[in-house]
Amino acid sequence: MIKQYLLSPGPTPIPNEVQLAMAETMIHHRTPQFAKIFSEVREGLKELFGTKNDVLVLASSGTGAMEAAVSNLFSPGEKVLVVNGGKFGERWLEISKVFGLKPIELEVEWGKAVKLEAIERSLKSHPDIQAILIQASETSTTVWHPVREIARLTQSGPLLIVDGVTAVGVARVPLDEWGIDALVTGSQKALMLPPGLGLISLSNRAWARSEKAKLPRHYFDLRLERKSQQRGAAAFTPAVSLIFGLRASLKLMRQEGLERVYARHDRLARATRAAATAMGLKLLAPENPSPAATGIWMPAGVNSDKLLDFLRDRMGITFAEGQDQLRGKIIRIAHVGYMGAFDALVAIAALEMALKKFGAPVEFGQGVAAAQDVLMETLE
Amino acid sequence: MIKQYLLSPGPTPIPNEVQLAMAETMIHHRTPQFAKIFSEVREGLKELFGTKNDVLVLASSGTGAMEAAVSNLFSPGEKVLVVNGGKFGERWLEISKVFGLKPIELEVEWGKAVKLEAIERSLKSHPDIQAILIQASETSTTVWHPVREIARLTQSGPLLIVDGVTAVGVARVPLDEWGIDALVTGSQKALMLPPGLGLISLSNRAWARSEKAKLPRHYFDLRLERKSQQRGAAAFTPAVSLIFGLRASLKLMRQEGLERVYARHDRLARATRAAATAMGLKLLAPENPSPAATGIWMPAGVNSDKLLDFLRDRMGITFAEGQDQLRGKIIRIAHVGYMGAFDALVAIAALEMALKKFGAPVEFGQGVAAAQDVLMETLE
Repeated sequence: MIKQYLLSPGPTPIPNEVQLAMAETMIHHRTPQFAKIFSEVREGLKELFGTKNDVLVLASSGTGAMEAAVSNLFSPGEKVLVVNGGKFGERWLEISKVFGLKPIELEVEWGKAVKLEAIERSLKSHPDIQAILIQASETSTTVWHPVREIARLTQSGPLLIVDGVTAVGVARVPLDEWGIDALVTGSQKALMLPPGLGLISLSNRAWARSEKAKLPRHYFDLRLERKSQQRGAAAFTPAVSLIFGLRASLKLMRQEGLERVYARHDRLARATRAAATAMGLKLLAPENPSPAATGIWMPAGVNSDKLLDFLRDRMGITFAEGQDQLRGKIIRIAHVGYMGAFDALVAIAALEMALKKFGAPVEFGQGVAAAQDVLMETLE
Repeated sequence: MIKQYLLSPGPTPIPNEVQLAMAETMIHHRTPQFAKIFSEVREGLKELFGTKNDVLVLASSGTGAMEAAVSNLFSPGEKVLVVNGGKFGERWLEISKVFGLKPIELEVEWGKAVKLEAIERSLKSHPDIQAILIQASETSTTVWHPVREIARLTQSGPLLIVDGVTAVGVARVPLDEWGIDALVTGSQKALMLPPGLGLISLSNRAWARSEKAKLPRHYFDLRLERKSQQRGAAAFTPAVSLIFGLRASLKLMRQEGLERVYARHDRLARATRAAATAMGLKLLAPENPSPAATGIWMPAGVNSDKLLDFLRDRMGITFAEGQDQLRGKIIRIAHVGYMGAFDALVAIAALEMALKKFGAPVEFGQGVAAAQDVLMETLE
């Protein structure tokens, strides 16, 4: 008997309240009953996205919502600046290319955040850049990019399109206040749901742009979605049970209080970083860490993929792996969504045990103690 | 947001497989469909109880099954020896008195197991004793009584009636092999179910005695139950969804293998005892500890009831309290049922943090490390 602990940055654990809501009797989506639930969900999402504008609910993964941001805001051949510092930066690049944009790639060393000066330089070199495409939290490298500061640069210039997949609900990313033009997330992260919903909100100037944008879009036509969703239903069949669940998860987040939700993610991330450091391990992103997940270099001689297989198959602990150039070298421990103090402690205790098993020098309890020191904050 | 960890010796956590089984569509209990499920469950229970005889499934708590053992096996005025070393020993005494038996009380200091010599002395002083009533695991004091050794004394003498509520499924208590005459348990312990089922099995000589026993019984008439259950249904309406769940939990236990289930409980208990000792805490039952739960004395100046309230309300951790003379002085950490290595580690990490908060001298990670040392066995 091996109990399962899902400590990856998506999918994330699902609270009972949400599971039970998703098990409610199916209803038809073209009814006043659904419209009422949907309208409640849409209000909750506005608070979460920090916007007075619509947050549109799509039956798609987060990548679908990323694609919608591109296909609704641009015309063929337009130039965009893509901040590429990891696998999800690469995804913006791919989408831009597929849709016939001219992406200018701003490469960022994996594990580092993009520098403001680099963005400024790019904008100067290419004054015809129409938008910056970036991640708030680059999940693959556990880096937090300075989106707030970048937004200050784009207020009267290009649009700022933010992949907030492991950021929205993890930390504050208020669309209106910061001046973000498109903000995207998915259901299976901080929203504590299974995969299947993509969420997107646009600024007023982005909506204006969407009217002129000439890229083809049908399923992801946000103009059509906005009209339909304001009338109480999605343009196409919505993922009804996930929306039941979303109502429950938004309620849980409101009960906890968004500021406390953010503080919790931050605390779990700090506890995990303190633990890794106390264990003598190096962090992948020591300077600009994301509160969504913590990347940790494994000691020399330990293949992280083998360690992760062992953790999952023998200990029931699912962390995430390193990708591409990081493959076999790092692990990522997530703090996203329905995670509490004891998830962080389980993660560290398990890592200590697995590393010991793999022959690394480990003193049991050392990482756990450092995490406990941080987590005592919750008991104040 | 405080995640809940149910680490009490009943109710215990319920696996998803069991929850889902209990959510299956209700069926009628006087049908071949139910009879098929019930017969499968009854076979599984025989293996668990280590008997070729019937294990009867009652819609009751474990106490109902204890009462059934008394009311089916005795006549008014008969003398029984009650081993009373805790709250559940007291319960045998109460039931015996209510039904008009003459219980001889063998008092045992709380935290100690009964001594074989004391039993032998009692049997000599009262040669007309008809049965010994005892707990295998006395949950209130976290003691394991030497039931196997006592059974050797009773083979040709009095019946041995064993409350196995936190013993069956936790450790081996084979009815046939050891020569136990009545063995009782409840659903909300090692069987990983909600409360609501009482289970009981009798030896052949106990069945013979049940025919002559004159105590009144109707709902708990085991002769009637045996007849009905052999025909595929209970005498009265059975708790159908709990029986669905029982089928699932027996399947999980079979998949893990009973010997491994017992080894797991033993390991978690040893890890917890090692942790408490490493933390400088004293065990309530250092000599004959039950693998079901570990009683730990709290340091001077720490009121355990207040500590338990804090653990439950501020940290989401439910342990059990000390009762009567132990009130305010001890805590009990359970290892019963759906519990794995990380439940034990969460328990210890939480205890370290709560004790620190209560001003006790604690070095973070010390108890955790001692538990990790033991739990590394699982990774061999």
